[in-house]
Amino acid sequence: MTLEGHHLIGFASQAGATGAQSIEAINPASGEALAPRYSLAGQAEVEHACRLAEDAFLAYRRLPLEARAAFLEAAADNIDALGDTLTERAMAETGLPKARLEGERGRTCGQLRLFAEVLRSGDYLDVRVEDALPERTPMPRPSLAQQQVPLGPVAVFGASNFPLAFSVAGGDTAAALAAGCPVIVKAHSAHPGTSELVGRAVQQAAQDCGMPEGVFSLLYGSGSELGQALVKDPRIQAVGFTGSRNGGTALLRTAQARPQPIPVYAEMSSINPVLLLPQQLEANAEALGEAFVASLTMGAGQFCTNPGLILALSGPALERFVDRAGEAVREASPQLMLTPGIHAAYQQGVARLDESSDVSLVAKGKATGHLACPCQPHLFRTTATAFMGNDALHDEVFGACALVVECDSAEQIQQVLAALEGQLTATVHLEEADYALADRLLPLLERRAGRILFNGWPTGVEVCHSMVHGGPWPSTSDSRTTSVGSAAIQRFLRPVCYQAMPEALAPDSLKADNPLGLPRQVNGKR
Amino acid sequence: MTLEGHHLIGFASQAGATGAQSIEAINPASGEALAPRYSLAGQAEVEHACRLAEDAFLAYRRLPLEARAAFLEAAADNIDALGDTLTERAMAETGLPKARLEGERGRTCGQLRLFAEVLRSGDYLDVRVEDALPERTPMPRPSLAQQQVPLGPVAVFGASNFPLAFSVAGGDTAAALAAGCPVIVKAHSAHPGTSELVGRAVQQAAQDCGMPEGVFSLLYGSGSELGQALVKDPRIQAVGFTGSRNGGTALLRTAQARPQPIPVYAEMSSINPVLLLPQQLEANAEALGEAFVASLTMGAGQFCTNPGLILALSGPALERFVDRAGEAVREASPQLMLTPGIHAAYQQGVARLDESSDVSLVAKGKATGHLACPCQPHLFRTTATAFMGNDALHDEVFGACALVVECDSAEQIQQVLAALEGQLTATVHLEEADYALADRLLPLLERRAGRILFNGWPTGVEVCHSMVHGGPWPSTSDSRTTSVGSAAIQRFLRPVCYQAMPEALAPDSLKADNPLGLPRQVNGKR
Repeated sequence: MTLEGHHLIGFASQAGATGAQSIEAINPASGEALAPRYSLAGQAEVEHACRLAEDAFLAYRRLPLEARAAFLEAAADNIDALGDTLTERAMAETGLPKARLEGERGRTCGQLRLFAEVLRSGDYLDVRVEDALPERTPMPRPSLAQQQVPLGPVAVFGASNFPLAFSVAGGDTAAALAAGCPVIVKAHSAHPGTSELVGRAVQQAAQDCGMPEGVFSLLYGSGSELGQALVKDPRIQAVGFTGSRNGGTALLRTAQARPQPIPVYAEMSSINPVLLLPQQLEANAEALGEAFVASLTMGAGQFCTNPGLILALSGPALERFVDRAGEAVREASPQLMLTPGIHAAYQQGVARLDESSDVSLVAKGKATGHLACPCQPHLFRTTATAFMGNDALHDEVFGACALVVECDSAEQIQQVLAALEGQLTATVHLEEADYALADRLLPLLERRAGRILFNGWPTGVEVCHSMVHGGPWPSTSDSRTTSVGSAAIQRFLRPVCYQAMPEALAPDSLKADNPLGLPRQVNGKR
Repeated sequence: MTLEGHHLIGFASQAGATGAQSIEAINPASGEALAPRYSLAGQAEVEHACRLAEDAFLAYRRLPLEARAAFLEAAADNIDALGDTLTERAMAETGLPKARLEGERGRTCGQLRLFAEVLRSGDYLDVRVEDALPERTPMPRPSLAQQQVPLGPVAVFGASNFPLAFSVAGGDTAAALAAGCPVIVKAHSAHPGTSELVGRAVQQAAQDCGMPEGVFSLLYGSGSELGQALVKDPRIQAVGFTGSRNGGTALLRTAQARPQPIPVYAEMSSINPVLLLPQQLEANAEALGEAFVASLTMGAGQFCTNPGLILALSGPALERFVDRAGEAVREASPQLMLTPGIHAAYQQGVARLDESSDVSLVAKGKATGHLACPCQPHLFRTTATAFMGNDALHDEVFGACALVVECDSAEQIQQVLAALEGQLTATVHLEEADYALADRLLPLLERRAGRILFNGWPTGVEVCHSMVHGGPWPSTSDSRTTSVGSAAIQRFLRPVCYQAMPEALAPDSLKADNPLGLPRQVNGKR
């Protein structure tokens, strides 16, 4: 498949306007540009894609659940069929290793297929039915039924760090398409070729499955121009974003300032505290130090759930942990960062910590002069008192950088947790003798994080029904949902109640004899 | 019970600060002030109530579901026990008739008891469990579980038009307390005495049931000062509001501008379109006209779901409808409005329509010189073309005022629907011969409204599991939830995932043997 550098709008593939600005992907290993050039979308492309999405919505939302499920599966099959073409382009654009990208491709297709299952089960519609009570006094009750309906066209922003699983056909796209919402994706400028390949796979699936044109479009452009234009468009009814705190907050502000504000699901910033409770630390300090650095340096630390903060009581066991972790950092193999911009931001973040008088350097990784965007892992340490007195130490440094915070007492661990902002994850390493302390900490962790893990590491997010990849501000802009797992479909739905609806007009999902066999709540009982 | 004019903060009852401004309720029939005076809360009272709420939260959220259920039931019992004391004070403060207030008291207590049932069933926790797959390749899966947890302290704003059911112990308070969130209520200044009575009933229930102090507080104050101070307080994690579009929007803006934005559930403005489809109108024009005016004038039109817009094809049948409705408006008994301010706004809204060259007056009700705040019902008419060309005609006039919009064709009905803002309700009057047209309109109605009714009238909102009292902007600020019915509990919850949690630390809701007997989704199956 030859890359064309074209926007995908509905079923068309079209070059950008003459004179439009353009971008090329940069290979982060060599610093070289990768053909083709992608011209950036302007207002004309936004208008066209939004008009098609709006037109498609009325038809798409009414399709049988099975038709939408088949479309998602066809998209997954097409992405699978791209094979090495996709993996090799993604490697060149992101510097991520082949095995990681193959795993990510599997996860992406798995997500699409999971949402096909979600559609077939129909549980997500949350159908509730209550019978009429014509004899009730003083007032009879009419029949009532409730189901979830899709919000409308959705703008999805591809993420830099997951060029497949959080990008063109990533979790937000899969969840929105499943919900019955057309999707317009803004490709991340770091991997336009990967985006084009995946976009064509989705576009082809839409055509082959007879979906209405406009159910999917893919545009290239800058966040501040294309992104803002999409979020301002009155036809867009929700936004999915994974990226920086500044980027997410800017989109949120725009969405809130619209005449009709809309939901923004922005995943932004998290330092993912890891608590090493005393007995577990005492028993396993070295093994924990080693496992920690393996998680920290995985993917050059470019995970939203990267463990960036270690909390533990000071003492000999913590010193053993720090010593072993420091060794592991010094020994870590050099890795590439995704883009020159991310590399520069990492260097600045590390320098800020290095220059802080509140912080001391434990270890740094090998310098790697032959790569354009190398990630040199860093491990710093500080005290709880210094940490609580310096908000800058709470900021995420995107990359393989972490801070160990020594606490004087269990109470001080609690104080540090209470001082933290919202997080995607919080991790507790413990053994049985630590349970009493863990029990005291758990309510605090539940307030601060969307996922709480025990004796594991936060990198690695299972795609399943129970997953929450979300959390309080600023880890996300809306803690009430998840971006990973089947519950993500709820982002793009709202409930509608039907009162005394004639059976002849009821959609299949609400008909009295339940022809779709949906799980329903009837008169208050499931 | 003697009214004291005191703030209720935690378990205390305290006078306002010396020198604080104060208010008295006004009897809308006589214009006379009603003792006692209520001094307005300042920053000290907000600080005190928020501190107690925050302290209470950690204990309250961990209480057994049964303990919270018993508290809600005790509050309902105490409100019931107020009997005529409550009804009479509410009549004096609001001008609403006795039977209506007795019904509203029953509804309010019924809501509290419904949420007790919701707690006992535990369905709202949406527990999802997935077993560990230690043998899975390439990576084992840890065990995962998900449940909903409460957001934190909630600020609730009492509404003027439902002094019981949408006020101190109304739907938002009941839903938030059920969810595990402490509540701070800002009493509506139109019914401070009613608020105090209900507040004491809730406060007493909290004490009697051993709830942590601070689970409930009640403050008097102005929306622009007390309301803003509450919404700005970092301990407040969500807001429930029913009132004007300006009031709701102001709170939303404040909540969005916080360092940590929080959800605002504001119900604001709706004109509740009613479609009279041709065959039904032909068959029943006069009966529809009469029933329409009964709904329009109920409670002086002061319902969020008041039918303010009639859409129908022009022709003789519509003229028969309009004639009969006009007669009914002229014959309607005089009624009181809630407050001098609401009365003045109604007069202005009616005058704006009366002066518009796009609109003509069909009929107005009797003038009623002896009441301080009389509602004189008004019925206007216009054409679809004029309506679509004049946005001011789309604004809610709070009170018994409606506009009939004559359409040339079914297409024009669709155009008018497409031009409408979001609505709480949309109503269709139809008979079988109208089903084909209804089927074309239904997708539009689903996009515009939270509840769609057939052959009924939108006033009267059933408190049940299937109800949606909500809808797209500006009917509410968040279309994803409802303020009435059991699903309202979802406003105050967020999901948390627990990964590889030791059984000894798991809350009862997540223990392997399901000691609470909760409905759960296990490995993807309910």
